[in-house]
Amino acid sequence: MPSKVKCLASLEAGKYPVPSTVARRDLRSDDIEIKILYCGICHSDIHHVRNNWGPDGYGYPVVPGHEIVGKVFRVGAEVSKFKIGDSVGVGCMVDSCQTCATCKNDREQYCDSATFTYGSLDRRDGSRTYGGYTETIVVTEKFVLSIPESLDLAGAAPLLCAGITTYSPLRRWGAHPGSKVGVVGLGGLGHMALKLAKAMGADVTLFSRSQGKAEDAKRLGADQFLISSDPERMETAAGQFDLIIDTVPYKHDVNPYIKALVPEGSLVLVGYFGPLEPTVNSAPLVLRSQNLAGSLIGGIKETQEMLDFCGQHKIMSDIEVIDARDLHSAYERLVKGDVLQRFVIDITTL
Amino acid sequence: MPSKVKCLASLEAGKYPVPSTVARRDLRSDDIEIKILYCGICHSDIHHVRNNWGPDGYGYPVVPGHEIVGKVFRVGAEVSKFKIGDSVGVGCMVDSCQTCATCKNDREQYCDSATFTYGSLDRRDGSRTYGGYTETIVVTEKFVLSIPESLDLAGAAPLLCAGITTYSPLRRWGAHPGSKVGVVGLGGLGHMALKLAKAMGADVTLFSRSQGKAEDAKRLGADQFLISSDPERMETAAGQFDLIIDTVPYKHDVNPYIKALVPEGSLVLVGYFGPLEPTVNSAPLVLRSQNLAGSLIGGIKETQEMLDFCGQHKIMSDIEVIDARDLHSAYERLVKGDVLQRFVIDITTL
Ligand SMILES: [Zn+2]
Ligand SMILES: [Zn+2]
Ligand SMILES: [Zn+2]
Ligand SMILES: [Zn+2]
Repeated sequence: MPSKVKCLASLEAGKYPVPSTVARRDLRSDDIEIKILYCGICHSDIHHVRNNWGPDGYGYPVVPGHEIVGKVFRVGAEVSKFKIGDSVGVGCMVDSCQTCATCKNDREQYCDSATFTYGSLDRRDGSRTYGGYTETIVVTEKFVLSIPESLDLAGAAPLLCAGITTYSPLRRWGAHPGSKVGVVGLGGLGHMALKLAKAMGADVTLFSRSQGKAEDAKRLGADQFLISSDPERMETAAGQFDLIIDTVPYKHDVNPYIKALVPEGSLVLVGYFGPLEPTVNSAPLVLRSQNLAGSLIGGIKETQEMLDFCGQHKIMSDIEVIDARDLHSAYERLVKGDVLQRFVIDITTL
Repeated sequence: MPSKVKCLASLEAGKYPVPSTVARRDLRSDDIEIKILYCGICHSDIHHVRNNWGPDGYGYPVVPGHEIVGKVFRVGAEVSKFKIGDSVGVGCMVDSCQTCATCKNDREQYCDSATFTYGSLDRRDGSRTYGGYTETIVVTEKFVLSIPESLDLAGAAPLLCAGITTYSPLRRWGAHPGSKVGVVGLGGLGHMALKLAKAMGADVTLFSRSQGKAEDAKRLGADQFLISSDPERMETAAGQFDLIIDTVPYKHDVNPYIKALVPEGSLVLVGYFGPLEPTVNSAPLVLRSQNLAGSLIGGIKETQEMLDFCGQHKIMSDIEVIDARDLHSAYERLVKGDVLQRFVIDITTL
């Protein structure tokens, strides 16, 4: 019999989540029930709650949350990877077809029938999926990640989305000793990109519009800090960077960052979805064989690899743990400005 | 004493080349003098002659031509790679600093002080460089390419620019057996991209605005042909291509080609330099981790690799050999429409 558990749910489009309850399914043979301890707040949560990306097809209530950590509480009869008490995590996906080319290639994030952690329909019973702002979650073991013991659970929660979102392009496009990496923006994504790129051995420069971020950037390990709002300072960056990870979530001019790349360098967008305005000029791309790319989270295999890397290097997110009752003020602070640290809900306060 | 040789020179901005003479330097110890047999006509030649890219700093006369093939006629005292009578070629560059990071990495095309085959200044004596619309050229042996014996010299000439321009991105971004490659446009660049991608083992689709190109595309080995001006047909291409080489030289909408890529696929622009309008939407780039890249010729090492590959696979450009006196009408035909085959000047008719 499905169990009813406490949660924070957005009951209609545009309404912030409030205390409610949600049903969790009975365990299937390959399922794991997780007692959630912490759940990070991602910008996507706010977009979904506010219906900014349009109706997601399955309507409200929406229970957000895809940066989930907790302990294994029960396991299905055929579960083999995990046992009760293990520290585990769940990210943006809870299932996929497992048979298409991208699934077979460990890229479940592109599967046409990927099941997202919230706002999707379960592949087997068609029930709505609900995210991590709840006491428990039931997930097929293939989509459950192992959290290394060296990590604090609250600080590890944001790795499940912000961590993999920045780790994947850093690996794919070459952050390593000897490479010069730029990170644009010092919010939840940017500060993870900075820590990860440093741990990979790169020389890292933080670009920000506000001089106020300079000290944070240095504290987090940035080798250089560059004011992006000053065209003269930006000129000094021309032709310098092997890779730039652009985490800015709103419309902005990417041409100065293309200019800052070395020949064959890559600018990777991870924060902004929409028309690139001012328009991109192809001349530098062609004349210096450069690359303007995007990147979307990572597959389950790569997410585990990222967690293991973070465990080895003791990399966690900078966080502020909040009570469930403080969710609305955290949302407001995120909407207003780019908060460096990630808000993480202490789920025991639900 | 420098020698005077016959050439076709554009005497002032906007004037098509006419018969003239130009001086070639005495051989330095590392120089090779080449008796030119054929020189291809590249779109860049016309841009330079018409001054479309603005004054190039060294003014007129301009002797265009950077798809040069001929025979070694004389060699300097220290030349070791070539001997008299060898079949050789010269492409877009005749020298570079040889000491910067990109030169050391066999990417001379990005060297800040690369010397172009025409419209540049020689690094050592400061004299103007003149291209291949001439009887002879004198080039340091490092920038002379060897033409494989299996190739017809006239058909090999366009490989020095059109060949390497398309070979390099096909190699870098993955054309191989099992990959699905699109080529946009069937002009001088497009038909080379098509032949090279086929020889690399890829399944190749030719995109063109005009149904009239369908037969040419099939004859040249295309597996599929797709009318790019029909939005419904373009929809059928969504999510299909690992790599698309876009050779279109004028402003056009690249968004439908991004849509045609698989996740992590790449669209590479080689023909158009300027603002991308309509503007590019970053959402598909991010959501499917795709790349919008550019590509510029290739270094000397890769150009030789391309020539050897063409020698092995007997790949040449489709050409129309013209007399020097027919240059103006060839230019006019190139300006008017996208001619499939490359015009190649028979230099013996100068
Ligand atoms: Zn997220
Ligand atoms: Zn799938
Ligand atoms: Zn050319
Ligand atoms: Zn150099």
